[in-house]
Amino acid sequence: MSGVTEGEGSVSLDLLKKKMADFAKERNWEPFHTPRNLLLAMVGEVGELSEIFQWKGEVPRGLPGWKNEEKEHLGEELSDVLLYLVRLSDICGIDLGKAALRKVKLNAVKYPILCNQKEF
Amino acid sequence: MSGVTEGEGSVSLDLLKKKMADFAKERNWEPFHTPRNLLLAMVGEVGELSEIFQWKGEVPRGLPGWKNEEKEHLGEELSDVLLYLVRLSDICGIDLGKAALRKVKLNAVKYPILCNQKEF
Amino acid sequence: MSGVTEGEGSVSLDLLKKKMADFAKERNWEPFHTPRNLLLAMVGEVGELSEIFQWKGEVPRGLPGWKNEEKEHLGEELSDVLLYLVRLSDICGIDLGKAALRKVKLNAVKYPILCNQKEF
Amino acid sequence: MSGVTEGEGSVSLDLLKKKMADFAKERNWEPFHTPRNLLLAMVGEVGELSEIFQWKGEVPRGLPGWKNEEKEHLGEELSDVLLYLVRLSDICGIDLGKAALRKVKLNAVKYPILCNQKEF
Repeated sequence: MSGVTEGEGSVSLDLLKKKMADFAKERNWEPFHTPRNLLLAMVGEVGELSEIFQWKGEVPRGLPGWKNEEKEHLGEELSDVLLYLVRLSDICGIDLGKAALRKVKLNAVKYPILCNQKEF
Repeated sequence: MSGVTEGEGSVSLDLLKKKMADFAKERNWEPFHTPRNLLLAMVGEVGELSEIFQWKGEVPRGLPGWKNEEKEHLGEELSDVLLYLVRLSDICGIDLGKAALRKVKLNAVKYPILCNQKEF
Repeated sequence: MSGVTEGEGSVSLDLLKKKMADFAKERNWEPFHTPRNLLLAMVGEVGELSEIFQWKGEVPRGLPGWKNEEKEHLGEELSDVLLYLVRLSDICGIDLGKAALRKVKLNAVKYPILCNQKEF
Repeated sequence: MSGVTEGEGSVSLDLLKKKMADFAKERNWEPFHTPRNLLLAMVGEVGELSEIFQWKGEVPRGLPGWKNEEKEHLGEELSDVLLYLVRLSDICGIDLGKAALRKVKLNAVKYPILCNQKEF
């Protein structure tokens, strides 16, 4: 558990992984946390996230004009997707943080920076 | 940028946020990174993640019997969902790590630990 | 409206298309029915459909043991996905029935029947 | 098969149901067509559908300016979602057409037409 501290700093994927594992264990939910159950639960949360945006037409960056309650609700749905994603990765034995850093590198190779892009 | 170090330790959401922001900026992709564009891109990645599991029936924890390439591919799709989720949160002005910790606390209130669960 | 009758026979996609168009018109909802709004609304319904299956593990065909209310609820969520899909197609100017028949034919070419499959 | 004719008229859900059942049977795919497998396959297709719209910003009705190939591709992805939805309903023992008509009626009760809406 060393390295999984919850300070005022940046939240790590390992911290969330540990919190989700503890949460499930304390409630005897582990038998329900199979890969496909968690995947479908995550799809459910993606649906709830989409509902927030469904009738709004194009939404500008920073959500100008949204009420605090709306932003708070959005934060909850974004979090629900994240928490199930973290838990799904853990249950599958995938190190999500490591995989994400690797994927960013793969993307950088796939989409190289063009010279004229760099200059701007 | 202090606190966003990429050491051998745990990967933070802020590090991924910064990497995604730099990635978009360097490629002049910022105009495309609107909330609903990113949301739909994330739904696309959730679809690719689902395709990995679609014909498999129930999948046991730890994915016994999966080849290394399959696990690597799974890590990439999980990462794609995560990276768009992190970017979507950033573009919406939501602190995803803070929101996730808050949501875990809300969940703990919503689903209290029962005494008989605690004892086991 | 000719050809779009609602008898005791089989329900057609054109009938549902017409019902959805009338429904939106009567409620002055047409301004909200843009392609991406409808797509996100459909994703929301796919989420609700997934929630029905999320904690169940593998579910056998025919849903043995499900209560009537559960089956009714499932029918409602399947319908919600269908109705938004029909409406999205209409708003995009796509003839969904025609497209679906064409896709079945493309699939038949892509996945030919093997001889040993035919015999069984 | 009576009532499931494929004429020049409107395509029915029962016709698509029969085509999907035949398709699976002819290829010995029936063992793979379980409820949750089909649901995840449908989520995969919803992802592909979303990818078509992901970087486009708001898209006007009728898709002005889209090339024929793009519209054809869109028709294919809409169809893939429909075909899995029809198959999923069949495998669950749900009459999708009947359920959809019932849902339209429930929606009409839930969202009554207001007087001032009627007049316009």
